[in-house]
Order: sequence, then C-alpha cells, then structure tokens
Amino acid sequence: MTSQADWFRPAINNMQGYQPGEWPEPNAGVLKLNSNENPYLPSPKVLAALADFNSELLRRYPDPQATEFFRVVGETLEIPTDWVIAGNGSDDLLTMLVRACAENSTNRKERILAYPMPTYVLYRTLAAIQPAGTVEIPYEVEGDEWRLPIEKLITTQAAVTLVATPNSPTGHVVPMGDLRSLADGLNGVLVIDEAYVDFAGEGAPQASLALVREFENVIVLRTLSKGYGLAGLRIGFGCAQPRLLAGLRKVKDSYNVDAIALKLGAVAIADQAYKEAIAQKVIGDREQLATDLRTRKFRVWPSFTNFLLVQPPNNTAQLLYQGLKEKQIMIRYFNEPGLDDKLRITVGKPEQNARMVSAIEELL
Amino acid sequence: MTSQADWFRPAINNMQGYQPGEWPEPNAGVLKLNSNENPYLPSPKVLAALADFNSELLRRYPDPQATEFFRVVGETLEIPTDWVIAGNGSDDLLTMLVRACAENSTNRKERILAYPMPTYVLYRTLAAIQPAGTVEIPYEVEGDEWRLPIEKLITTQAAVTLVATPNSPTGHVVPMGDLRSLADGLNGVLVIDEAYVDFAGEGAPQASLALVREFENVIVLRTLSKGYGLAGLRIGFGCAQPRLLAGLRKVKDSYNVDAIALKLGAVAIADQAYKEAIAQKVIGDREQLATDLRTRKFRVWPSFTNFLLVQPPNNTAQLLYQGLKEKQIMIRYFNEPGLDDKLRITVGKPEQNARMVSAIEELL
Repeated sequence: MTSQADWFRPAINNMQGYQPGEWPEPNAGVLKLNSNENPYLPSPKVLAALADFNSELLRRYPDPQATEFFRVVGETLEIPTDWVIAGNGSDDLLTMLVRACAENSTNRKERILAYPMPTYVLYRTLAAIQPAGTVEIPYEVEGDEWRLPIEKLITTQAAVTLVATPNSPTGHVVPMGDLRSLADGLNGVLVIDEAYVDFAGEGAPQASLALVREFENVIVLRTLSKGYGLAGLRIGFGCAQPRLLAGLRKVKDSYNVDAIALKLGAVAIADQAYKEAIAQKVIGDREQLATDLRTRKFRVWPSFTNFLLVQPPNNTAQLLYQGLKEKQIMIRYFNEPGLDDKLRITVGKPEQNARMVSAIEELL
Repeated sequence: MTSQADWFRPAINNMQGYQPGEWPEPNAGVLKLNSNENPYLPSPKVLAALADFNSELLRRYPDPQATEFFRVVGETLEIPTDWVIAGNGSDDLLTMLVRACAENSTNRKERILAYPMPTYVLYRTLAAIQPAGTVEIPYEVEGDEWRLPIEKLITTQAAVTLVATPNSPTGHVVPMGDLRSLADGLNGVLVIDEAYVDFAGEGAPQASLALVREFENVIVLRTLSKGYGLAGLRIGFGCAQPRLLAGLRKVKDSYNVDAIALKLGAVAIADQAYKEAIAQKVIGDREQLATDLRTRKFRVWPSFTNFLLVQPPNNTAQLLYQGLKEKQIMIRYFNEPGLDDKLRITVGKPEQNARMVSAIEELL
C-alpha cells in the first residue's frame, strides 16, 4: 500500500472542497439566514402529495425519463418536454455542464470556464474538480450597478460561460439585452443560472427562455430550492434545445432525481399561484429589511433575490457575523477580496428579520 | 455560433450514454423484472416516517454532514460515524471515486480503472465520461464458478479497481480471501461494491467491513435500492477510513442526498429485522425459481443476489426476451459477447415468478 497522496488525481490533492453554509439542527433555536432558503413552507398541495405518496414508487427506480415532471415544466413554461433536463438540484446540472464541456488538455485547445465576479462560488469549485481552467472577469462597478463585462467574456471564448441572474451575492439582474449580446458572441455554451429568478419580479421568469428559443448554445437553469421552498428536496431543471441536452444526458446519472422529488417537484411547479404569493411576501419583506438596515447606516445594494448584500458601517462586517452567530443568528460572510467588508443576509419572515435587526443594534 | 460538436469534450462526443433498464408506468400492468428491484415494499417504519415527515425539512437544505444517517449506519455496522459517506444511490459514490482518482493524462502515469468481466456496466460508462482508461479482465470460468483474476488485477495496478460482490449479472460472491489478497497487492483504491449483499446470506454483510478496518485503500459500497426496497429514494453509502473519504468529499456535491432520503434511509437501516425478513423471502423464492427454470432445461448459475443469470435451452435468449416483452414482462438481455445467450431475471413475488415461468413455457 502506498501513501495517501497517490490515491487521488493531482487536481484533487491540490484543491479545497466547497464549503456550504453552516447547518444548525432545525430545533436548536438558531435563526438560519445563511443559505437563502425560502422562509415559507412549500405549497400545501406539495405537502398533500407527500402525505399521499404511492409507496410502490419507493420500491422502484425513479422514471429515468421524468415523464410527468417534464410534462408539467413544459406546460408551465410553454416549451417542448424534450427541451427539459432534471437535476439533483441545479448544482447537479452545473456539474453535468462542466463534465460535458470543460477540461484541461495539453494536446488541444483548452476548454475553460468563464464567469463574471463576484458570483456563485461553486463555479470555481467545479472547475477545480474537473480540472478546467477559469477566467474570472470582474463586474464593472458604477455606484450600485454591476455591469456585465460582455466584451471580455466574448473575447475569452470559454467552453462554458456562466452568468447567474439574479446573481449571488450581489442580488442584481443582468439585463436581457446583455445576455442576448453574450449568447450571440459566444461559440461555447452560455449557462444562464436563474436560481433566484422567482424573486426578480414581473416578467423576469419567462424572459430568458426566449434566448433558449433563439440560441442553440444557451441553457437556462432553474431550481426548486429557492422560490418553491424545496431546498431539502434537491430538484432543479435546465431548459435548452435537444442537441445541447443530448450531450448533458450522456454524463447524467440515470436516476439522478428520486421518485419523491419528481412527484413533489411536478406538483410544486403546477402551483404557480402559491409560489407567486410567497415570492411577493418575500419581496415586500426584503424591501422593508433594506429600509431598516439603511436607517442603521448600512449600505444596501438593490436586490432581485431573497437576500440582501449589505455593507455595515465602520467596517464591522466580520464582527457582526461573529456577534450574530453568538446570538444564534447565522448569516453569510465571504472572507475574500471585495466581499470581506460585506454580508449576505437571507430575507426571513418579518419577525425573524426584526430579531436580526435588533441583534445588530445591540452589537453596533 | 459554431457546430454542435465543439460544445462538448471529445470524450463525450465519442461515447454512448448508459442505458438503464426500461421503465414502464407503475399502473400499466407490466411485470418489471429487469432492474433488480426488491419485490417487497420498504419497512412499515419507513412508510410511517414518510407519512410523518417534518415539512420544515423540505424548506431547508439537507444536513450536509448527514449526522443522523451516519449515526445509524455507524451503530448498525459497528464502525465510527466518520468512516461513512452518503451518496445519491451508490452510483453517485462510484462517480465520486472515478472523479477523485482516475484520469487520462499525457504527462504522467495513466490513472486507469480495472475490473473483472462481466460486471456492472456502469463502470465502463463512468470511465468513458471521465475519461479514464480501463483494463477489463475476464473472470476465469470453471463450470459454474467465476474465479477472480487476482494476479492480473494486481499486475494492472489501476488507480481504481472495482469488484462487485455479489456480482451482477453473474450472481456469484467473491471469496473474502480473494478480496484480501487483492487489497493487499494494490497500491490504488479497491472498491468492493456490495449492492446485492443483503441477499448473500449469513455472515456476508459484515465480512468485507473487516477489510476496511485492515486496509486504508479499501472502500465498501452499499445501497438501499435493493435489500431495503428503496430504489426510488436514491440513497447509498460508502465505508472507508477517513483519509480515503476526505478525497471523495472534495468531489461530492454538498447536498447530494435529499432530506427525505436521509431520514427514511436512517429509519430503514435501523430496521434490520424487516430487511432480513424480506431478504429471506426473496432468497427462498430465488431457489424455487431456479428449480422451476432448471426443470425447463435452463442452465441456472448459483445466485447470492435477488436475480438469476440463466441460459435458456436452444439459444433462445433474445427470442424469450422479446416474447416476454410482448407479454408485458420485462427482463434484462445484454447484447454483448459472452452474455448474448443468457438472460438476467429479477426474482419477483411467487405469483410474479409463476406468471413469468408460464409465459416462458408458452414461448418455448
């Protein structure tokens, strides 16, 4: 038997794993505002479907074609059912995209990932695992505005270009015209990661699907973890034309989404009215929280998500993160350049937001 | 926009996707004996836990540490909780192993996969995706016996050596002494894939865990899809020493197993008595089915699983597969050298096995 280092590929030995948000026990009295979960439970129709679940479906492998789930997604988004692929969360779809398209290679053109920064940290982790090179291009900042570096991304000509919109941790939306220009200029795949789209407001949820119809190299990712209140279920989906999906299916695990997630996911998506109703509550509470924090001298960026990016007064970000943690309130702190004076705070229910704001007052 | 071929890595363009067993609608009246699902429902305690599921756990991301699940696995198998890793089915764990350890490379020693043949087809698919080279070494056959080619596997010195035991589609068990010799001779990782171990009979489930204690490079994989009747839930686990698991965790998706699967999986594993009871029924029915088919001039290999590898008389394998399909009975036919005169038949309930046997009689 040899030393441990030889078991793994060099890329794995050289990388750190992705760090998810901390996970307190549900009954521990901890207020968890660190992972952008929806503060509201999923639709009552979802809970009813769970209570009524056909146990025969536990015994069998899940439908590898996800027939019912794709039918509901197709009807709701008005796209063909064969334009849909399901993932064990949209993270699973991101993994498929990286595995299908990106790699380092010494004997042919590098197939890299490119994305504007700051954005979802997992993109970098997935590139490190593959491994594939990355080009990280900073957003062009002007006041509260984050402008997509379109020309630089096009010049990069990555195998996979990833744009989260609305973006985390900034909370901003990338204008549709910018995404269209990018799609038009790229030869590789453009991933439009819409994890937070359900909180973006009117019109947004449907808009970028137009780009899927227009461009064969565009895939739009959605998740049920945020807007639908189903982070525990692990289900997301991608929408793209069949030729792009055919490549992704080759790397997809046949049974990547379980039978309960397929069933409950279909029921959740069919109940758009409920999703809209809880999103409207979150949006209202987000704006109230933004006002409450601005009153306390926080800089608060405009948000189209269920979280706020904020900069506390007097460079107190890390101090507040620690202080809130001691008071059993978890928010997110990113210890890296450009973010280490800021905090990302999930919007909770009104009473939860109030508890956090008064804890902040005590700490400042 | 460029042609489709450029979107994907060459390895992906050059490969076929894995073909899972066909999936008829549950209410279509089709007898599904093609994917080795347990004919019995999961434990009543599992169904009760599903009915009583805490909906707060749907809203939140699942516990990335799988605390409760690991506690139950650790107690049941008498291993430390940090010797356990969870997967979205054991297929997910196989994917992690390949991604962490195997690759093609032009500028350093190849990191290949090796396994005896015939075995689980997914090993080859995962190598093609990575991509990584494979060395496939035939089992040494003598009568009904399949002898592990230990020396050839050791000589290969693969980054990952995979041995399914009990094996599919052969149904045989690899003797513990052979596994020990192999573990002792390998520098890379030895994966002992025990998907079917719950049907192997007395002593088998615990035995290879001794190798995990003995060898730092051994991982044992288990699934809840077969013995526990939970194929629809997608949960499996691996047991290895912490240094091996540390590398796998780097490529694991943080939330790869959903909250329902973690909860129900823990309940299922805690109810060993139920699992043993349904396994005993399946084992009894397997032996009856073997007798019934031998009476009809089938060659039937000894099985330690919930399926039978059989060779029908007069080279009628493909004909029977098609004929049974027309009669709404699905079994598995592998159209490849050495297997194309054989069939793999999942053991069903007694009345299901009887229906299949009389359908076979009609066809012959």
